[in-house]
Amino acid sequence: MSEKLHQLKEILGEVSDLQHAQSVLDWDQNVNMPPGGSEARGQQLATLGKIAHEKSTSDEVGKLIADLKNEFPDADTDEGALIRVAARDYDKATRVPAKFVARQAIATSKAFEAWIEAKSKSDFSIFRPHLEQVVELVQEYISFFPPADHPYDTLLNDYEPGMKTAEVQEIFNALRPKQVKLIKAIKSARQVKDNFLLKKYNEKKVWDFGEAVITKFGYDWTRGRQDKAPHPFQTTFSVDDTRITNRFEDGNPLATLFSAMHESGHAMYEQGSNPAYERTPLAGGTSLAVHESQSRMWENLVGRSLPFWEHFFPALKKTFPAQLDGVSVKSFYKAINKVESSFIRVNADEATYNLHVMLRLELEIGMVEGKFAVKDLPEIWNEKMNDYLGIIPPNDAQGVLQDVHWSSGLMGYFSTYALGNLVSAQLWEKINKDIVDLDDQIRKGKFDALLSWLRGKIHVHGRKYDPQDLVQKVTGSKIDSAAYVRYLTNKFSAIYGL
Amino acid sequence: MSEKLHQLKEILGEVSDLQHAQSVLDWDQNVNMPPGGSEARGQQLATLGKIAHEKSTSDEVGKLIADLKNEFPDADTDEGALIRVAARDYDKATRVPAKFVARQAIATSKAFEAWIEAKSKSDFSIFRPHLEQVVELVQEYISFFPPADHPYDTLLNDYEPGMKTAEVQEIFNALRPKQVKLIKAIKSARQVKDNFLLKKYNEKKVWDFGEAVITKFGYDWTRGRQDKAPHPFQTTFSVDDTRITNRFEDGNPLATLFSAMHESGHAMYEQGSNPAYERTPLAGGTSLAVHESQSRMWENLVGRSLPFWEHFFPALKKTFPAQLDGVSVKSFYKAINKVESSFIRVNADEATYNLHVMLRLELEIGMVEGKFAVKDLPEIWNEKMNDYLGIIPPNDAQGVLQDVHWSSGLMGYFSTYALGNLVSAQLWEKINKDIVDLDDQIRKGKFDALLSWLRGKIHVHGRKYDPQDLVQKVTGSKIDSAAYVRYLTNKFSAIYGL
Repeated sequence: MSEKLHQLKEILGEVSDLQHAQSVLDWDQNVNMPPGGSEARGQQLATLGKIAHEKSTSDEVGKLIADLKNEFPDADTDEGALIRVAARDYDKATRVPAKFVARQAIATSKAFEAWIEAKSKSDFSIFRPHLEQVVELVQEYISFFPPADHPYDTLLNDYEPGMKTAEVQEIFNALRPKQVKLIKAIKSARQVKDNFLLKKYNEKKVWDFGEAVITKFGYDWTRGRQDKAPHPFQTTFSVDDTRITNRFEDGNPLATLFSAMHESGHAMYEQGSNPAYERTPLAGGTSLAVHESQSRMWENLVGRSLPFWEHFFPALKKTFPAQLDGVSVKSFYKAINKVESSFIRVNADEATYNLHVMLRLELEIGMVEGKFAVKDLPEIWNEKMNDYLGIIPPNDAQGVLQDVHWSSGLMGYFSTYALGNLVSAQLWEKINKDIVDLDDQIRKGKFDALLSWLRGKIHVHGRKYDPQDLVQKVTGSKIDSAAYVRYLTNKFSAIYGL
Repeated sequence: MSEKLHQLKEILGEVSDLQHAQSVLDWDQNVNMPPGGSEARGQQLATLGKIAHEKSTSDEVGKLIADLKNEFPDADTDEGALIRVAARDYDKATRVPAKFVARQAIATSKAFEAWIEAKSKSDFSIFRPHLEQVVELVQEYISFFPPADHPYDTLLNDYEPGMKTAEVQEIFNALRPKQVKLIKAIKSARQVKDNFLLKKYNEKKVWDFGEAVITKFGYDWTRGRQDKAPHPFQTTFSVDDTRITNRFEDGNPLATLFSAMHESGHAMYEQGSNPAYERTPLAGGTSLAVHESQSRMWENLVGRSLPFWEHFFPALKKTFPAQLDGVSVKSFYKAINKVESSFIRVNADEATYNLHVMLRLELEIGMVEGKFAVKDLPEIWNEKMNDYLGIIPPNDAQGVLQDVHWSSGLMGYFSTYALGNLVSAQLWEKINKDIVDLDDQIRKGKFDALLSWLRGKIHVHGRKYDPQDLVQKVTGSKIDSAAYVRYLTNKFSAIYGL
């Protein structure tokens, strides 16, 4: 190996170790940490972050990357891809001054506190001055980067490398009217019954059922585990230690099942990353949207499908005989796919979810462009909710204040949730061409061909290919809404007899 | 604050954060980590250790310490103590070359593997060449330090700052014949019955009982937690997050109770360290012996005392009515204090424990001096076991191969276990003078006066005073065996009617 490449890998390997140590500390904070531990933990995380930042932005790293770009110009090789991704990470990390990062950390820490209070009191005026400052900081952040076609491109690029605002808008513009139309049609159809989903279910039995399902999926427990946390999430300490968390809510007992499937989708993506990429910038998943395509595929295209429940429903019924007494697999399938316009994004069903995301994207773009003033957000929010979903939130806690993202300075993130749905359907069409009896396999509880397809086509590549390039390479087209529209229309036409 | 002191504290604060991050990763490895995670975890720990070492041994730190020694010459002030301890840590860390540390890490890693195999096969010849190399490395390590009164002083100093080999030998020489004599007397007395301790006890009930006990002690659960691990240990992530682990063994079910008390003693010491010392070298416990004095006090002087069980036995009997049917508190008290010469140190009772330690100390000193050849250790071990305890191990697995310490390169460590016992009794005599009704308080399940005494006299000082100075300051004399001999003699004379 080139001596310089070796040097670069040494430094970036240490950066990776520091970042994974941060992930362990963060996981522990969510899963185990006693309340007293939080202040010191914040300090420890800040120190690890500071050292990782110093190491990854040193002049030495910059010089090595510059030299290696000439030595490995072909981005189709692993070495070339590594240099390309490392150069992009380096460029991003060095453009933003440390002083700005410190100012932003203080402002968002206060904004987060204010958001907590504002949400609990459903009072937007408490959050408003903080959000105004966050928007100013976001605009300042954008100013550190070269002008793009649209200022929002810079934000998007942090989560979907190479993706343009105009592309996302075009995709969403094609999708929006079709989803709105579908929801209207569903509203006029005969509604499905789901009262049996809201009965009391034993937490441990639900938890264990979820683990049995994701074991069948192929989640590797020798390289992972599931723990209880306030929110479900997936985290990676190495390709051989990728963990998931979950929760149980009495009011929504079977959500735990679908969260387990969702998070295992993220985790299996990380478990399938090429081991040769470990401790390099190529390890992990290529973007949030592609990550979400994996989690949503296992949760929805697999886990909310009829073949899946034709296999698993007898076992579920045996586990919960009283709750599911007299319920057929078809009624159960319809119930878990019930469509209903609702206020809260995280609880939204497949047919309405993307509209929640589009609304947020439009607001973010409007704020970044200066077209929408922060003070007007609650009103704009409610108008769009009415346009897209036909409902108006009764208060701001269930409206504009519901998500944590903006209080943490996260803008540019939301659209990846919807893009992930689209990619999942694009992949699904391709997979069904390659594995013609996939439905039958799922009906038998067999997922090995599916997982091995995903491993070979998506997971193993880590961050080697940018999301648009990867989707193009695998499906023959870039990210596009057509497959998702076909999927939604077929599925819900059958369920609602449209 | 002096600008230089501020700079030094900044750097050492980051070193402390890195070390605590290591502790979190290490705890996770013992408590949670799936098997696949170990390789990457080793790498992450190595990187954190390397960066902490680089930061703490930089020329900048050396220069700051040198300047600050003049600025804060009075070691009785917190600032002066901080500089004194930081200077000692710095001196130690900079004397040992990084290359030696790397060589030692490789050798001990191999020695550890060999020890595992040797122990499982009870074949000393497998471990012998590795131990020979460990002894050479230990001698090389000593050579990096200025000559001391005895070469073993350098090793001892790593665990008991300021303690001399001659002092330990003098203490142990006074103690040994008295303990040997006591054990002989016990052997000729009527033996106590403990068959009810060996029945089947429910794991969760034992675990919960242990937690109820240490809650009464004053272990602060908002700043700690107890988890299951292969071995009981205590670890500190900050003064506000000090955790303990425990295990359950069917063959020795109530050991879990005493381990909880023991580890909570360590943890309460760490929880009581002055919060102003956080992220400085003064945080934590001053030495292994003083640490052990806290754990052994709660486990033995409190937890194996008659007043303690006069309070807790009714509850224990209610929890385990079948197992303890017909057992009186006195019989229970005698059973948990049963004295028996046995081969394994970690299972030894209070009356025999120190002799196991003395034997190891003599072997270590002999190896360092070159007086004992590694090849002769099994024979020397067995001779001394016969002299001190009147028994000879049936094989080396239950003899010279039983402890992990030497395979990890740890020499100089063992004596702290026995010194901790001695200190616990010295403190106990003083505490009973200051809290005259302590036994009555314990009989009522009240431990607040005891904990608050320990907090104020021991815990709050962190590493400010060296162990001998601290014991002198609190009890009026240095570490000494007289109090422990009085304690053992009184206790076991009563139990065995001597």
